[in-house]
Amino acid sequence: MSMSFEEKLTALGIVLPSPPKPVATYIPASQAGDLLFVSGVLPIRDGQLVVSGKLGEELTVENGYEAAKLTLLNALAIVRQELGSLNRVKKIVRMTGHVASGVGFADQPAVLNGASDLLVELFGEAGRHARLALGAAELPLHAPIEIELIVQVQQEDS
Amino acid sequence: MSMSFEEKLTALGIVLPSPPKPVATYIPASQAGDLLFVSGVLPIRDGQLVVSGKLGEELTVENGYEAAKLTLLNALAIVRQELGSLNRVKKIVRMTGHVASGVGFADQPAVLNGASDLLVELFGEAGRHARLALGAAELPLHAPIEIELIVQVQQEDS
Amino acid sequence: MSMSFEEKLTALGIVLPSPPKPVATYIPASQAGDLLFVSGVLPIRDGQLVVSGKLGEELTVENGYEAAKLTLLNALAIVRQELGSLNRVKKIVRMTGHVASGVGFADQPAVLNGASDLLVELFGEAGRHARLALGAAELPLHAPIEIELIVQVQQEDS
Repeated sequence: MSMSFEEKLTALGIVLPSPPKPVATYIPASQAGDLLFVSGVLPIRDGQLVVSGKLGEELTVENGYEAAKLTLLNALAIVRQELGSLNRVKKIVRMTGHVASGVGFADQPAVLNGASDLLVELFGEAGRHARLALGAAELPLHAPIEIELIVQVQQEDS
Repeated sequence: MSMSFEEKLTALGIVLPSPPKPVATYIPASQAGDLLFVSGVLPIRDGQLVVSGKLGEELTVENGYEAAKLTLLNALAIVRQELGSLNRVKKIVRMTGHVASGVGFADQPAVLNGASDLLVELFGEAGRHARLALGAAELPLHAPIEIELIVQVQQEDS
Repeated sequence: MSMSFEEKLTALGIVLPSPPKPVATYIPASQAGDLLFVSGVLPIRDGQLVVSGKLGEELTVENGYEAAKLTLLNALAIVRQELGSLNRVKKIVRMTGHVASGVGFADQPAVLNGASDLLVELFGEAGRHARLALGAAELPLHAPIEIELIVQVQQEDS
């Protein structure tokens, strides 16, 4: 008997943060058909950026891996808010990760594994996603990482 | 009695620029199903880049806000060209804004509000979009901003 | 009598590389409805990055144009692996090209033409795509270019 995604989240001991509130005239996510496009999210908890700086400068790959996990949890908090429950996720289609990179830093994939690993741990096969790993010059609020998700939604309640 | 999007545009006194012409073997936008993917656009008028440079170096947030507005108008000019009329817009799904950022510039969201605010002013609820705010190292032609839109299209004429 | 895309590929004398294997918990591509989202790909052959460095520093536009072609072939190798045959491509919807850019390099479009030209040569009208040309601060493995594709798939076998 397999667990639902919400049960799995609980079993993993993960508590999602409050979904971040956009501070301007955009919205946390927008659905078209069965695709949910989630806005860019940062490693925020309780409305505050938890970690700042660039990879290869202030931050190590390990710091970045942890930041990627927290950033993903913010994205999932938005997904739950939009859908009512993570159980309505059909598939994680694509994740794009923008990693604030000091000159010469080229290990963006290892940083993003913090988010990718968690997606697969939580959603199993449905969490296996296409991915882009990119190095950004700068990110809002000096965040080290910004993640964007495209999620396919179960059209009928599961 | 609510105005159509084209009427609203006129009421706001906005005249769209000529849609930018791709200078290579790509096209201004591509539709798949009811999603219209608009190519990256720059702050261009009459075929010329109107403003260049990076935020936090040559340009202030106020300069960037104005550049974001003009860039968005170029995207909307493409949308009108593709659909025949802005009235066929069902929803602005997502906007991604790439802001050319000097070292340490982290206020990409304030720059992109120039485009986000205009989307909501023009399209109302249908203009509320998911958004990514990113800092680019460099952009084509030394443009300060490049915007990408995903638009959901009314399948029947409205 | 028109050639199929696979026949056209052969006629052009193009041999696709082995599709790149993700080195982490993501997958090469993910399909939702009739849209295939291809993960970011680099200029790789036989599992090795063929060219590294930044445009405007170690690399010229001509180097970048060639790298863009090879990068695209990697994306197409994934498309064939996912669909069984390039003949199932209905349309190339959008290509995003991230070009690792030294300070002041602003000719990302000319670099990406290496990929865009090939798409149109191979797929004809179905290869005409929306495009984003962006300058990245850094890319994984010090690659000079990373390309992302969205492809619309023929739902019935053609």
